[in-house]
Order: sequence, then C-alpha cells, then structure tokens
Amino acid sequence: MHDPLESIKPQVRGLRRYSLRYETVRVKLNQNENPWDIPIEIRNETLRRLQHRAWSRYPEFEPSTLIERLSEFNGWAADGILVGNGSNELIQALLMVTVGEGKRVLINEPTFSLYRQITTVLGGEIISVPLSSQLAYDMKAIKAATELQKPDVTIICSPNNPTGCTILQTDLAEILEISRGLVAVDEAYFEFAGETALELLKQHQNLVVLRTFSKALGMAALRVGYLLTSPALAREISKALLPYNLNLFSRTAAEVALEMYEARLKTLVQIILGERERLCEELGRIPGLEPVRSQANFMIVRSAVEPRR
Amino acid sequence: MHDPLESIKPQVRGLRRYSLRYETVRVKLNQNENPWDIPIEIRNETLRRLQHRAWSRYPEFEPSTLIERLSEFNGWAADGILVGNGSNELIQALLMVTVGEGKRVLINEPTFSLYRQITTVLGGEIISVPLSSQLAYDMKAIKAATELQKPDVTIICSPNNPTGCTILQTDLAEILEISRGLVAVDEAYFEFAGETALELLKQHQNLVVLRTFSKALGMAALRVGYLLTSPALAREISKALLPYNLNLFSRTAAEVALEMYEARLKTLVQIILGERERLCEELGRIPGLEPVRSQANFMIVRSAVEPRR
Repeated sequence: MHDPLESIKPQVRGLRRYSLRYETVRVKLNQNENPWDIPIEIRNETLRRLQHRAWSRYPEFEPSTLIERLSEFNGWAADGILVGNGSNELIQALLMVTVGEGKRVLINEPTFSLYRQITTVLGGEIISVPLSSQLAYDMKAIKAATELQKPDVTIICSPNNPTGCTILQTDLAEILEISRGLVAVDEAYFEFAGETALELLKQHQNLVVLRTFSKALGMAALRVGYLLTSPALAREISKALLPYNLNLFSRTAAEVALEMYEARLKTLVQIILGERERLCEELGRIPGLEPVRSQANFMIVRSAVEPRR
Repeated sequence: MHDPLESIKPQVRGLRRYSLRYETVRVKLNQNENPWDIPIEIRNETLRRLQHRAWSRYPEFEPSTLIERLSEFNGWAADGILVGNGSNELIQALLMVTVGEGKRVLINEPTFSLYRQITTVLGGEIISVPLSSQLAYDMKAIKAATELQKPDVTIICSPNNPTGCTILQTDLAEILEISRGLVAVDEAYFEFAGETALELLKQHQNLVVLRTFSKALGMAALRVGYLLTSPALAREISKALLPYNLNLFSRTAAEVALEMYEARLKTLVQIILGERERLCEELGRIPGLEPVRSQANFMIVRSAVEPRR
C-alpha cells in the first residue's frame, strides 16, 4: 500500500505544529492578553443584538457593518479593509496569494512564530534578519537583506512580539521605498505604542497593516482581526479568505467594541501603560533582573537569576 | 514605482473572489441551511456555560472537550479528529499541506466551488471530471482519470452540492484502493443521506472525512466544522491550521449541540427528509418541472419554464 504521508509536502513533514505549553501559575502573562475582561456593557449589548438572530443562518456574505465601523475608526476606505478569524487568518491569506516555491519572506527574529510556519507550509523561503543585541530592529541589516535578496514579502511586527521594540516610521518609509515586494506591519499591539503605520498607507501602495481585537480590545476568545491596505491589494488578498470567515457572534461583538471603545476600553489601555512603566521600574530594582523597555503590554526581562521550580 | 500587484501570484490575479449575490425572496433556500433555528435549549445552555468565561482570554489551545464529544459521537479516536472555523478551513488546511505547483486535485463538477478556488490559489492544477448526464458520479471517468493522471488529492462531495447525488461506499472503496494520493469526502450533508464514509476510515489510511455544523446541526452562523482521518494524517494537516481557529462561543455551542443532538436535533432532520420527499413529488406534478432526486436537504429541478421576474 502507498504511504499516505507521502502525499504531504516534504517541508510540512519537517515542521512542528504551532503549539503552546500550559503551566500552572498564579498570574497568567504568557499570551499578552488584556488582563481585564471586556466591560460588561459591551458584553450585554452584544448579547442583546444577537437575541433575535438565527444561529442556523449564514452571516451576511460581506461583514459590511463591521467594515463600516472599522472605516470610521481608522479613517480608511472600506474597500481597503478586510476582516478575519483573528489577524492570523489575514497573515495566512496575504501569504497564500504571494508565496509559493521560490518566493522569499523577510522577517526579523525572534518574532511571532506563525510567519515562519505559514511561509514554510506554502513552500516559501524565510530570510531571517536578527534583531540587534539591544533587541531593536537592525535597519542596516534589513536594508542590506532587502536590496540583496529582494524579498517578495517583508513582515515587521511592531511592537514586536516578544521583545516590545517598534520600527520608526521614517525607517518603515525607507523599507517601503526600497522594497520591490509587499511590506506587512503587524500592529497587534499598536494601541500600547501610540504609533501606527496607518499614515503611510496613502503614499505606499505596497503596505499592508494588520490589527487585532485580541490584545487592547480584550477579545482574544472571539478571534477577530483586520487588515488595512489599498483597495486593489485588498481585492487580491480577499481571494484567499474563506467565505463567512467571521462568525456572527464575534462579528457583532467587534462592532459593539468599536462603538464603545472611547467610552469603555481606552481607559483600560491607559491603566496598562501605567502598570507597564511601574513594573519595569520595580523589576529593575531587583538584583540580577534587567527589564527591556517595551512599547507593548509585555516585556522581556534579562535575568541572571535561576527561575524557581 | 514598482506595481504592488506584481507581488500577487499570477493564478490569483486571474481568479474571481468567491462571492454570493443576494436576492430578495419570500422563502430563502439558496444556502442549504436548516430552515429551523437551533432549539432554544441549546442556545440557553450555550449562553449559560459562557456566562463566567472571560472574553479577553484566548480559548484553550486544544479544544479538548469538543474533540472528546466528537470522538464519542463518531466512534473515532480523538487524535484523528481536527476542528475548524467551518469545514472550509479544514479543506484549506488539507490542500495547504498537499498542494503546490505541479500538484493535481481531482474534483467532480459541478460541485462546491471552494475546492477549485483554494487549489488554484495554491498553484495546483484541477482535474475536473464531469458528473454523468443523470447528475450522478461517473465512476468510469473517475477511475480512468485517477489511473491516468494520478491526482495528489481527490475530493468527493457526498451528497454533492448542488446536485444531491452520493457516492456508493463500494465505489468509494475502489477509488481509495486505486488512488496514490489522498481522498477527501466532504460530508457536509451526510445526515440527510444516512450514508457515511466513516466505516472506511479503519481500512483506508488515505481517507479524510469532512463534516460541518452548518447544515443539519443548524449552526451556520457560528462556523464549526470537523475532520476525521488517521492520527498520522491529522497531525500533518494540523500544521496548516491557525492556532485558536475556533472561537470560544462557537466551540461551546458545538459541544452543547452534540450533547443534545439525539434529544433536540435529530427530529428536525427527520422532518426535513419528509418535506424533501413531499416537495419532490409535488414539484414533479407541475408541468415543465422535473425535480432530480436528492440525498441532501436541497434539490435541483430541471425546468422548461421561464422563471418569473
């Protein structure tokens, strides 16, 4: 009998599945979530809107209401916006329409491991540029790799998971200028940095900005992400999105969260920022610990101390 | 400036986006949904279980409870089961780990258009075997194409969307025997046919069975699907699944639906079957209409009558 595993692409067989090890801890910090639950007003309003909707019917083909809200929220045209089952699905769709055998994706490591995972499954090659010894983006190395190896896609996570460093907007503009391929900026944590590549979208047609509802917006359980780019690119990327990718419940909750962001969620972000600074300072006082300044809602701590088991 | 659309793979640029045109109608039939909403008991129990769960936290990495329920429901080992954001995501994952340039996917057309869409995005080639003039599976043609063109993946939708024909289990066994590649049977409508390829899983390691909660189980709004195969293949396919692909809400609702299937949902399927037979008979009495017998919850009607506008 023919071995069914031979039907699996060799690069997939060589991969390990994306996974997460659970540990029993007193304070859970490992997934960079919003430590507060979503405000009760957002919860109740979501459930109220869903009360008379049938679960047996597909959601509307186009999530128009959510896209309108996102368009207002970001000041960007609705036809340049896509929504997904978490921003993960949008990263995947972007890579599906651009990457195959012989294509190259530039990433800066260490970073979110899914970029490498999906690129590999699709048969693409990773160009890995290491962060600097200060755990910052190494512009000289990024520019050299971009000019020499001409990546088809460059992904910049800003603030970067797991280091919390951001890319300067002037540096990003330079990368956009010299890139022959697309440049995606994963802004999963941008609310904690106060900086965004959004302004560069108007001048740079090769820019794709990715966002999520899983961090500052406190909705990791519901899996909602979105993407901002030119209408022409959005149209192409949408061809790799699954129909009805966003379920009715998450779609509705995301609409409500945007409507109530100013009133109910923004303060939580402010509190997290204050706590981040306080924690960074306090950790720095502990002998042997050296926290690395972060623009996100997490931080790396260099340690000379053995962890207690 | 470099044209950003040149970064998009040529086969994607040539594709049209999957889409659906809405029509205003008195009775909506075009998405093959369960015409009744999910029973109130399933709705209430889902909301009750979710009451004390935080929306801000990621769901458990492994949807273990749902997979256990599916394992009991289907009598199949938990490590041979994957769940997805609708069965669409599982079809996509299966094709991602098997298809790239130079790979061939056999489908029987007309059928669900997503198989062709995803295969094309991934750079694969479609081997299209037409259904017979009676709108049934053409075994002679399938066998010839399988032996001559050696598809890497064969997808059989049974009952087939949009014709309602099923594949005989003996024919399926023969296809599994002669295929060097994987054979996926999309059983989105199997509850209406009373036939399933499940029994063949034990003998055939190259078989993948796809299921959905969107049809008989009345949960199209929530997007839940699952896949049954050998543990070894499940492990490979899971490498192309996105982490946390199933949100907490849909995950919980699916658990409840399985627990209450016998008590609350099975009867609805029985009623649909009765109505299908009645409708088929009554339509057959209208001059110019010729309904085609279907094993699903929809049917094709050949018509000599001009539709009224």
